Amino acid sequence: MKAEIIAVGSELLTPYFQDTNSLFLTEKLNEAGFEVRFKTIVGDREEDIAEVFRNALGRSRLVIFSGGLGPTEDDLTRAAVARVLGCHLVLDTSILEGIERKFASRGYSMPDINKRQAQVLVGAEVLENSRGTAPGLWLEEKGVFIALLPGPPREIKHMFQTEVLPRLQALGGGRRVVRKTFSIAGMTESEVDARVAPIYKTYDRVQTTILAGTSHISLHLSRWLDPGEEPSDLIELASRIQEALGSAIFTTENEPIEAVVGRMLRQAGSSLAVAESCTSGMVGAYLTRIPGSSSYFSGGVLCYSNKAKTDLCRVPEETLERHGAVSGETAEALARGVRQVLGSAIGLSVTGIAGPDGGSAEKPLGLVFVGLSDDNRDLHIRRILPGDRNAVRERAAFFALACLRRFLMPESAAGKP
Amino acid sequence: MKAEIIAVGSELLTPYFQDTNSLFLTEKLNEAGFEVRFKTIVGDREEDIAEVFRNALGRSRLVIFSGGLGPTEDDLTRAAVARVLGCHLVLDTSILEGIERKFASRGYSMPDINKRQAQVLVGAEVLENSRGTAPGLWLEEKGVFIALLPGPPREIKHMFQTEVLPRLQALGGGRRVVRKTFSIAGMTESEVDARVAPIYKTYDRVQTTILAGTSHISLHLSRWLDPGEEPSDLIELASRIQEALGSAIFTTENEPIEAVVGRMLRQAGSSLAVAESCTSGMVGAYLTRIPGSSSYFSGGVLCYSNKAKTDLCRVPEETLERHGAVSGETAEALARGVRQVLGSAIGLSVTGIAGPDGGSAEKPLGLVFVGLSDDNRDLHIRRILPGDRNAVRERAAFFALACLRRFLMPESAAGKP
Repeated sequence: MKAEIIAVGSELLTPYFQDTNSLFLTEKLNEAGFEVRFKTIVGDREEDIAEVFRNALGRSRLVIFSGGLGPTEDDLTRAAVARVLGCHLVLDTSILEGIERKFASRGYSMPDINKRQAQVLVGAEVLENSRGTAPGLWLEEKGVFIALLPGPPREIKHMFQTEVLPRLQALGGGRRVVRKTFSIAGMTESEVDARVAPIYKTYDRVQTTILAGTSHISLHLSRWLDPGEEPSDLIELASRIQEALGSAIFTTENEPIEAVVGRMLRQAGSSLAVAESCTSGMVGAYLTRIPGSSSYFSGGVLCYSNKAKTDLCRVPEETLERHGAVSGETAEALARGVRQVLGSAIGLSVTGIAGPDGGSAEKPLGLVFVGLSDDNRDLHIRRILPGDRNAVRERAAFFALACLRRFLMPESAAGKP
Repeated sequence: MKAEIIAVGSELLTPYFQDTNSLFLTEKLNEAGFEVRFKTIVGDREEDIAEVFRNALGRSRLVIFSGGLGPTEDDLTRAAVARVLGCHLVLDTSILEGIERKFASRGYSMPDINKRQAQVLVGAEVLENSRGTAPGLWLEEKGVFIALLPGPPREIKHMFQTEVLPRLQALGGGRRVVRKTFSIAGMTESEVDARVAPIYKTYDRVQTTILAGTSHISLHLSRWLDPGEEPSDLIELASRIQEALGSAIFTTENEPIEAVVGRMLRQAGSSLAVAESCTSGMVGAYLTRIPGSSSYFSGGVLCYSNKAKTDLCRVPEETLERHGAVSGETAEALARGVRQVLGSAIGLSVTGIAGPDGGSAEKPLGLVFVGLSDDNRDLHIRRILPGDRNAVRERAAFFALACLRRFLMPESAAGKP
C-alpha cells in the first residue's frame, strides 16, 4: 500500500523551517500498513499544489496533505484539491457554527476570514479538529484515499490519531510493520556492523539499519507482517543481536542514557554528584531532564577553572601541577572531591580538551578522562574522542554517563565501558 | 528562476531521519537568484527517482539532487537520471584513478564496489569532491540544469560552494535575494508583531517573517533584487525595525545569545560564575560552547540540592527557610555566593520550578528567579515561563543569559530585561 505525504507551506521552502510532521506520520502510516514512498514540500501556490497532487494521484493509494487549511488567502490546499478533482467547495453551516462556538468560548467573535475554514469539498467527510479551528477532510477518488490535515503539530497529531488512523485500519488490509530498536554505547558503527552483519544478513525479511548519532549508535529492525503473520524471525534476530552485543546495549526502549542511569541510581537508593570541566554543565543538564531526578542527583561543580577544581572539588594543587588538569589523577580527585563536598554516594567527573586550541602531542584534542568514585573504589577511564569542539563535548558528556552505567552494573555484567 | 531539490535515500522515508541539506541549499540557491519551488524526498528505488526527475524536468530550470551517489547497489541516482535522459553511463578512468589514490593515501586499496562512483553520464561535467569519494555531476538538458551531488552534509556543502555556485552565478541572470535577521529577547511573538506590523506592512516588496522559537523570537526580512537594483527599501525598513524594537534586539548576526554576552564579558575584562538550580548546567553548557570562553567563565555550581546551595554557594540556611529555594532572596544569595567562592566579578543564578510536580498557588510551575551580583549591586528578576519541563528549563537558561546581557549594558541602554 503506497502512501505519500505532501507538506504545504511557503515557510517550508525557506532556509529556516523543516517539515517535521512527516516523521510522526511515517511512523503511524507504517504501523497501519502503508509504506511512504514520496514526501513533497510545496509552497502556498495553488498551481504548484495542484501539480504535486496530480502526480500523487497517479502513483499512490493514499495521499496525506499537511498544512494550507488556515483562514488566510495563503491557505490553498482545499482550492487546489478541488481544482484537480473538478469538484466544488461549499460552505458547511454546521462547521461554521462550530468555529464560531470555538471563538465565542474564548470570548471572541469569529473574524470573517475564518469562514474559509468551513468550506468543504463536495463528497468529503469532515475530520473533527478538537485542537484548532481548521477541520480536516477525507475523501476517495478512483480508489485513492486523500486526507487534508492541518499543519500545526499538535493539531495534526491529534487529528491523525483520532480521525485518520481508524479509517486507515479499515483499509490497510491487515499489513503492518513491527520494529525493534537497540541503543548501543562504547562501540563504533563499523564495530557494531562487523559484530551483527553476519547475523542479520541471514534474515531476509527483516530490514536492519545502523545509524551513527554523535554520541551513540542505534540499530533498528523493522519487519512488514502480512495479516495473521507473527514476527517470529524478528524476535529471533533481536535475541541473537542482544546476545552478540550484550551489555553494550544500554536500552531497547529508545530512551536516553540519563533515563537508564537515573533508574539504576533510584533502584540502588544511591546518589550522585558531578564535577564537569570540558562539558561544563552538559552532564548535569542531561541528568536533570528526567523528572524526579532530584531524588538521586545532588548537584555538582562546573570546574572550568583550576580555582574551581581546588577550592570547590578539593583537588590537591600538587595533583594539578604534577599531572595537569586533563589527567586521570585529576579526574579521580575531582570525582572523590565532589562526592565528599556534596555528601553523595557516587562522584562522577569529566575533564578533557575540547578544542579548538590547547592540544599537544602528548595530550591531543579530544582527549577526555572520566573519573568515578564511591566508598569502595576510585577509578578513571581515558578516551580520545573525534570531532570538533561541540562533537567532543557532546561525546564526552555521553561517555561520562556510559561509564557511570558500567560503574553501577554488577561487576560480572559490566565489562569495558 | 525556478529550482527544485530532490533528496534521495530510503532512510529519509523512515521516522528517524530528515533531509537537512535542503536548508543550506535553499539559502545558497536564493542568494544566487533561484527560487526553490519544490522539495521532494524519494527512496533508493530507480523507478521512483526517475518518476520524480521526470516531473522536475517539466517544471524547473534547475534540479539539484542530493544523495544516491555512493558505491552500493542502493545508490541509484546516476542510473535513474541516465534512464530518463536516455543517455549512457561510462567509466571515467581519471575519476577511477582519483578514487584509488584517495584510498591509497589512507593505506587501503579500493574495494571493487567503488568503481560505480567513477561512472559518469555521457556529456556531463564532473564536480570534484575533495571531502569524499563520490564525484558530483553537472549537465544541461533542453535548458534545464541538473546537478547530482553527494548526500553527506560536509561533502555536499563544500561541493556546492566550490563547484556549483560558480556555475549558478553565470546562469542566475543577476537576480538575487538579500536578507536581514533580528534576534529578539524578552518579547512575545504577538508583542513583536504588534510593534512592527504597522511598519513592515508599508514595504510591499520586502517579505517579513516572524518566527517563535522556544527561547526567543526571530524576525527575518528578505527582498528579491533585480540586476542593478539596490535594497534601499530593505535597509530603510531594517533601520525602522531596529528603532522600534531597540535593545530587545540582541543580535542582527544570527549568533546565539552566549556569543553576545561572551563578547561583552571579554570586552569589559570581566569574569562570570554561575549557580544553577532548575537549569542544572544548561547555562554553563551554553556559555562554554563559545571557544575561548575560559578567559571570562570561571565555572559554577549545580545547586540542585539545598546542601549545594548552603555549602557551596554560601546561601544562609535562614534565607532558604524563610523564603524557600525558589525566591528572589535565594537567587540573590546564590549569585553573590557563587561569585565570592569562585572569585569572579559577576555572579549569575537561576532557581525555579520546572515541573512536572512541585508547583503551588503561590509558586506556580514555570516560576523562575534569576539573580545577579557584582561589587556594586545585587538584584533579581522574577518571571513565569510557559511550557512543559523541558521548555521551562530551556527558556529559563535563555532568560538568565538575557538578564545578564541587560546587566552588562550601560544603564541608559538597558531598560527592562
